[in-house]
This record gives sequence, structure tokens and C-alpha cells, in this order.
Amino acid sequence: MTSLHAIIMAGGSGTRFWPASRAARPKQFLPLAHGVPLLQATIDRLAGLCNREQVWIVTNATQAAALPNLLPDFPRDHILVEPEARDTAPCIALATATIASKDPHATMLVLPADHVIEPVDRFQAMLRRGITIAQDDETLVTFGVPPTYPATGYGYVECGDPLDAAEPRAFAARRFREKPALPVAQQFLASGGFLWNSGIFVWTVPAIRAAMANGNAALAKATDAMLAAIHAGDAVATTAAFQTAPKISIDYAILEHAKRIAVVEATVRWDDVGTFPALASVGARDADGNHAVLTDGASQLTLQSQGNLTYAEGKRTIALFGVQDLVVVAVGDAVMVCPKDRADDLKALVDHVRAQGRTDLL
Amino acid sequence: MTSLHAIIMAGGSGTRFWPASRAARPKQFLPLAHGVPLLQATIDRLAGLCNREQVWIVTNATQAAALPNLLPDFPRDHILVEPEARDTAPCIALATATIASKDPHATMLVLPADHVIEPVDRFQAMLRRGITIAQDDETLVTFGVPPTYPATGYGYVECGDPLDAAEPRAFAARRFREKPALPVAQQFLASGGFLWNSGIFVWTVPAIRAAMANGNAALAKATDAMLAAIHAGDAVATTAAFQTAPKISIDYAILEHAKRIAVVEATVRWDDVGTFPALASVGARDADGNHAVLTDGASQLTLQSQGNLTYAEGKRTIALFGVQDLVVVAVGDAVMVCPKDRADDLKALVDHVRAQGRTDLL
Repeated sequence: MTSLHAIIMAGGSGTRFWPASRAARPKQFLPLAHGVPLLQATIDRLAGLCNREQVWIVTNATQAAALPNLLPDFPRDHILVEPEARDTAPCIALATATIASKDPHATMLVLPADHVIEPVDRFQAMLRRGITIAQDDETLVTFGVPPTYPATGYGYVECGDPLDAAEPRAFAARRFREKPALPVAQQFLASGGFLWNSGIFVWTVPAIRAAMANGNAALAKATDAMLAAIHAGDAVATTAAFQTAPKISIDYAILEHAKRIAVVEATVRWDDVGTFPALASVGARDADGNHAVLTDGASQLTLQSQGNLTYAEGKRTIALFGVQDLVVVAVGDAVMVCPKDRADDLKALVDHVRAQGRTDLL
Repeated sequence: MTSLHAIIMAGGSGTRFWPASRAARPKQFLPLAHGVPLLQATIDRLAGLCNREQVWIVTNATQAAALPNLLPDFPRDHILVEPEARDTAPCIALATATIASKDPHATMLVLPADHVIEPVDRFQAMLRRGITIAQDDETLVTFGVPPTYPATGYGYVECGDPLDAAEPRAFAARRFREKPALPVAQQFLASGGFLWNSGIFVWTVPAIRAAMANGNAALAKATDAMLAAIHAGDAVATTAAFQTAPKISIDYAILEHAKRIAVVEATVRWDDVGTFPALASVGARDADGNHAVLTDGASQLTLQSQGNLTYAEGKRTIALFGVQDLVVVAVGDAVMVCPKDRADDLKALVDHVRAQGRTDLL
């Protein structure tokens, strides 16, 4: 049996949670999992499935520097630092080369750091099903979430034939479709047989290397070069090899034209909590439909106010009076107020903050 | 010539500026005069008119305890503490007894602590005119502001005959009218000859004592008892005498039925900055009509936002994105958000805060 390594992809910047999220404190650092940082919760969810010594975090240099403060017990030599932001394919290539250097036949479980997933037992059962398929069939495996609305912010996987009769259900993946336009998403929902791509993958090192060789020669070559550099203990060469990898997502580089991919249907409550209003699913709710995510002594008072979302950290109180459907955030040295229906565009505000020269706030 | 004493009435709690104002930090403590606390600005405006040694502050015990921190150089024995809140008549009675104990023929200038008044030279000229009238005619003198809209939150003075041809103009006051209903206020504006009562008064000690004797015997008796107690150096008796004074405003107790009152027309820019939206007149304004009062390192960033009013203290940034006509306040451990058109009702929020047991925030 091959060893199982979990690679947590923690490079996201989370501008849609500004000012709670900052460059050195991305979304996955925020205490959105019942007061626990999402990244910590992601690690905790693997307990019993994967040895702690085989958990890895891939992130950028800024966040890597902040990680020991967030996760003091996490081994520093299991933090893989991307030399630069080049999308997910080079990131996975670096992880693949690193794991391959330990065990060329290892199984790799790849997980986003910033999702809320419950309950743990069903999550692990779903992963075990995917691991078995990945190991038995030497195929790439993804996990698909049954869609509940025609989302345009997620990729979709079209399911083909079921692999067998076991539970949770698994299918041959027929097609990957990146974030579709609304009419297309509506058609996906109407036709059935489409799942949201959860961004969780499992495959063996040989399977992903074969898929790279078949699908993206430059990526395969960069992976080989990184592996050689790691074996040689040459960090400079590893960085140089990383920088030769094409700047592309793993979906576009590999998944959309891989020959054999399986998709396991997720049987968990899955939420990528992509924006402040999405925190309604993880926060407390009062009788007027005001949601609040409050940590480290923060509190809220509302009067004649409905449908607001408050996020606050630290000993402070947010008082709302006569307001509706606002997002109010108070963290550290910043307060942010916007309507809920503008929260998707928060990147525009972050761009404005940068344009104003206030990089101290980013 | 009699001595001139200035009595600054600083007892207001300013719940309409919560959470900037708190019990121990009322409106007059806030840095609303170009970054200077209103109370400090009120004292500063008297420079050259009145000896510093003849300036007094009347306030409650909570604020008196906080005053040395705000005004470290102000002599503590010139802070008069109201034993309890009994409206303005007992407060003025205490001040009258105190000043009378120093000089029974003194002139008393009575000023609210929490107004914005500019420019200083015209303000002092206006006061000098009133002081002369008060001393020459032994009459009570008030100062009236030409109304610019039919305000229902101010008292009005109806002007009678002009006293003489000097400037600024002065009239015999015909009638005092407390806060009128809107149709009445509109009628006042249409008919002309009405001024807003500024709450600034000047009179001699004999004149105010005579007016008390004629208008409110209980108030006159309490004043006499306080004066006797002060002469005896008996603080307990002073407190006891204060508590016998009727709980009533000086307007109702004296002004509305005093026989001879003069009103000097104010020739200054006067603003009682009664609510957060009124701060628009004292704060900075951006191109989108957002006003901000920012002190001690606070800053603001706005994007696609119009007509908001921000008040912040301390090193923090308020970011507004896509919002209109809001009041956003961030001071100490509290953030408050409400629509501008609800700012008049802020007392309801303060009552709610109290009802929720959060007296730590008041």
C-alpha cells in the first residue's frame, strides 16, 4: 500500500473578506469554522485519515511567514512556499515533486484550505471512497457537490456512467466546465447529472505525473525538474524549475482533457464561504435575520435592523440601528460598511485602497 | 465696575452622539471644534474678554471626575458639581450663589459648553454689547440667533422694540416660546421678528436674584440658602439647599415671565451641532458629499458612496463601499451604523443598549 499525503492549498488571498482578511492573514486564517481558523479546521478534519506527519501546506511567502503564529505546532518543513503566484498547476507540480521525492508511489489528497465541510465522518468516508478509486484504478479523482442553485462562480463536472453500485456514488467524469454563464448553469441544473467541482482531488503520484505528461508537457517537465532539484537538495534550482511551469490552473492544464477522471459525489454539507454574506451559514442569527460572526470578545446590538451581516473580532461592540441588508466588518484598525449585494464586488474596494496608497491596510 | 464671571454649563449627556459620547465623555468633551473639544473651545473663545480666574464650569459628578484629564490646567476649585440633575434653574442658582459669594455685584455670563460659534471677534463684540446692557439696565440679557429654517428643537424669542440704534442690534424681548410645533415654527419664520434662543445669557447677580424673587420664590429661597451655606463653608448644607430648588429649566422658571429681558441679535455663525448629521458643518467633505470628522490618526476611504457622515477617533480607517446617507461612528470599543435620517432618534438605541444591560458601553 502506498503512503497517503494530504496537500492543503492555502495560497488564496481572500480579497472578498477585506478588511478581515489581509495579505498576511488570508481567508483561511479567519476563525470561520465555529471560531476556529478554516485552515486549522481543514487539518483537524483529516485526523484519523492521514498521519499528521504527512500533512503539507502549500502557500506563498507572506502567508508562510505568518503561519507559525497561527499554527505553532505545525512542522515548518511541511510548509511548501510557492516562489511566486502562478495559479494552481505549478502549485500542484511543486507538491507532486515534493511528495514524489518522499515516495514515488504515494497517494496525494489535495484540499483547499478555506472551505467549511461537515460532518467529518461523512467527509472521511467520501475521501476513503475516492482514495480507493485513485489507488485501484490509477485514475484522477475529484469530488463533486450536488448543486443547489445555478451558480456561476463554480466549475461543474458532468457525470457519466456510475463506476459501480457502492456508496457514496462515483461516476466517470464526462466533462469539466469552468465557471459557466447563467443560462448555461441553469441548463446544467435542469438537465441534472452535473456536480460542482469542490476543488478536492485525490490521485497517486504516478497518475498525476502521467496526466501531466499527456496533457501539458511543460508542466510535466517543470515537475521533473523540481523533483530532480529536490533530490539534489538544491532550493535555488527548485525555485527556477517552478518558474518554468506554465501559469495555468490545474483544471485547464489537466482535468479538462485528462482521459480518465472519476468523480465522487459529495455527501457532506460543503460551503466555500466565498463572500461575507455567505457567512450567514456559519454565524449566529437573531430574530430579525441579522447574522453575526463574532470572535475574541466581540458583541453586537441591533435595533430596528434586519438582514445585516456583522463580522467583528476583539473586544468591541457593533451597534446597528435602523439599517437593512448591510455588511459591517470591524477588525483591527479597519471598519468596512457595504450593502450585502455589493459584497461580491469587494475586490473593487480593495483595488481602491491600493490605488489610494493605503497598502498598510492590505 | 463689577467683575465679570463666565459660567459654562457643561452638564449635558449628549446621548445623540453615542457611542462617541459616553456618560463620562459627553458631547462637550468631543473634539468637534476643528479637533479641539467643544468645552475647551468654549473657554478659549473667552480669552481677552474674561479673566481666566473668573471662568467656572458647572457639571455633574461623573463629568467633573473626567474633567482634569480633558483640561489638566483648569483649576479644580472652579468646577462646580451639581449634586444631582435638576435641570438648568438649580444649576444657575448654584452658580449665582457661588459668584455672589465672591462679589455680590458681579456680572454673570452663562454659556452652553457644547456649541460651535465663529468668529471669535464678532462673538466677543456681541457679548460686550449684552454685558453693557445687563450692567447699565440691570436687566436679563439673552442672545438670539436669526432662524434659517422652522426648527422645532429650539426655543424662540420674539423681539419687541429695538433698544437703540447701536450694533449688534438689541431688542426688548416680548415673549419666550419653548420648542414649538412645526406650524407654529413656520409662522414664526413667516412673521419675522423671532430669534432662536441661543442659551447664552448675561445678567448681574442682583438682577438674576431679583428675577428669581419675582418669578420663582422657591428658586430664590434655594439660592439664598446656598449662598449662606457657601459663606459658612458648609458643603453639606450647600448640597441640601441645592436639592430644595425646583426641578425646572431657567426658561420656564424665570425667562418666560421676567418683566424686563433684552435680546441681542447674534452676528456669528452659531451651531449647536445637536446630532451626527449636523457635524457636516464642522467636518471635511469629499467630492461625493461624504463628510468626515476624524481625529487622532483616524482616516476614511469611500468608493461609490455618497452623503455619508463618518466620525472616528484613533488610528483606524473607515471604508465605505456603495452606501448612501449613513452615519458610521467608530470610537473606542464601539462601532455604530445608522441612516442619517434616524440619527435624531439615537436616544432609542442608547435606551436599547441600557435595556440590554450593556451599561459598560454608556
